[in-house]
Amino acid sequence: MEKKEVKLIGSWSSPFAVRVIWALKLKGIEFEFIEEKDLMHNKSSLLVQSNPVYKRIPVLIHDGKPICESLNILEYIDEIWPHNRILPEDPYEKSIVRFWAKFTDEKLSEVLKNVLTSVGEDQEKKVKQFEDALNILESEMKEKKKKFFGGEENLGYLDLVLGAILWLEVIEEISYGKKIFDPERYPSFNRWIEEFKDSNIIKENLPTKDQISPYFRNIRKYVLASKTHE
Amino acid sequence: MEKKEVKLIGSWSSPFAVRVIWALKLKGIEFEFIEEKDLMHNKSSLLVQSNPVYKRIPVLIHDGKPICESLNILEYIDEIWPHNRILPEDPYEKSIVRFWAKFTDEKLSEVLKNVLTSVGEDQEKKVKQFEDALNILESEMKEKKKKFFGGEENLGYLDLVLGAILWLEVIEEISYGKKIFDPERYPSFNRWIEEFKDSNIIKENLPTKDQISPYFRNIRKYVLASKTHE
Repeated sequence: MEKKEVKLIGSWSSPFAVRVIWALKLKGIEFEFIEEKDLMHNKSSLLVQSNPVYKRIPVLIHDGKPICESLNILEYIDEIWPHNRILPEDPYEKSIVRFWAKFTDEKLSEVLKNVLTSVGEDQEKKVKQFEDALNILESEMKEKKKKFFGGEENLGYLDLVLGAILWLEVIEEISYGKKIFDPERYPSFNRWIEEFKDSNIIKENLPTKDQISPYFRNIRKYVLASKTHE
Repeated sequence: MEKKEVKLIGSWSSPFAVRVIWALKLKGIEFEFIEEKDLMHNKSSLLVQSNPVYKRIPVLIHDGKPICESLNILEYIDEIWPHNRILPEDPYEKSIVRFWAKFTDEKLSEVLKNVLTSVGEDQEKKVKQFEDALNILESEMKEKKKKFFGGEENLGYLDLVLGAILWLEVIEEISYGKKIFDPERYPSFNRWIEEFKDSNIIKENLPTKDQISPYFRNIRKYVLASKTHE
């Protein structure tokens, strides 16, 4: 096992950062967590230097070298510390989980961000897009349930990525005022959420509403204010 | 080497498909190319079955199993046929090329599509976004030129991805009417383009303007028409 210094610049409010925390914990890697305190108004110079292109979290710093973008970081972690693998070893199975990870970030995580920062008719459109993506995932999960786990018992890469869905409840509450995710409409997905939340590493490392809400409220306020000034 | 049947659903008009052709040629893999003839109005049932989520090219079919999304396909090809590697073996170097590949698709390829399908002020905004991304790549290339090649002499994954820039000339001509890419403003990038176009596999497998233009003209016409009906 590598013994070089591992740091993670992140925030408990971000599903993109927390999925990296989960991966490091699953592997049992010790790391220094550097909370990025004011992502909206005052980014740390460490973050800006480590990710000059996007200036966003998470950034993993391994032996002084920065690795950016959460999916990229998860692949890196699995290559550097190959025990408790999170990606399948078979190239075809790996291509399948990579496909769904990209789908999750483009069609769920990204769209959720849009739901958070919109209102009225515009927001309804985003909610509809989100539901369309959920429907696709629901039927995929129903058909090939096993693909969504690294193994029978173990969490895998795709589970950590899909974990972003756990932020949904706060987003519904803050920005939409009603439920988007109806467990009865997505029974397979809902079963997966329950199992996922109940897994060892996850239940011990779940951000609380208090950790998520203030930041998300601020983003919504800030983006909506800047829209009215356009 | 695997001897299973390899098929590629694609089109010479698409940089996303052609980068996969280049990778297969670099590896010397024999494959059946299945030209998707009418992507806009009449997708083949093979495409729809093989990529039910996005219904888009390219799709690699290896031994009957479909692999979708071009970056995903390139990774798969490099794992199945590891000779003439296109991705670096070192995990950190690999994370760097994956980072820039994602950047290329999000900030160049995607934005070029927007330039193609917009007009006036809206189009100028997209061109500006594209130039911003080019500036970032130019300084990266200037500083760490080698990163953009699999080796000193050999083409790598990131080169094949960046090859999308070769479609720019047609897009400038069809949709913008003037040059976006001024070689003097991007000397490192321009040097890379010249070297890339002159590499063996690339110069033998470059789509012609005749192969690209009609499809791109159609997309522009179609999207602009549907915008005026919104």
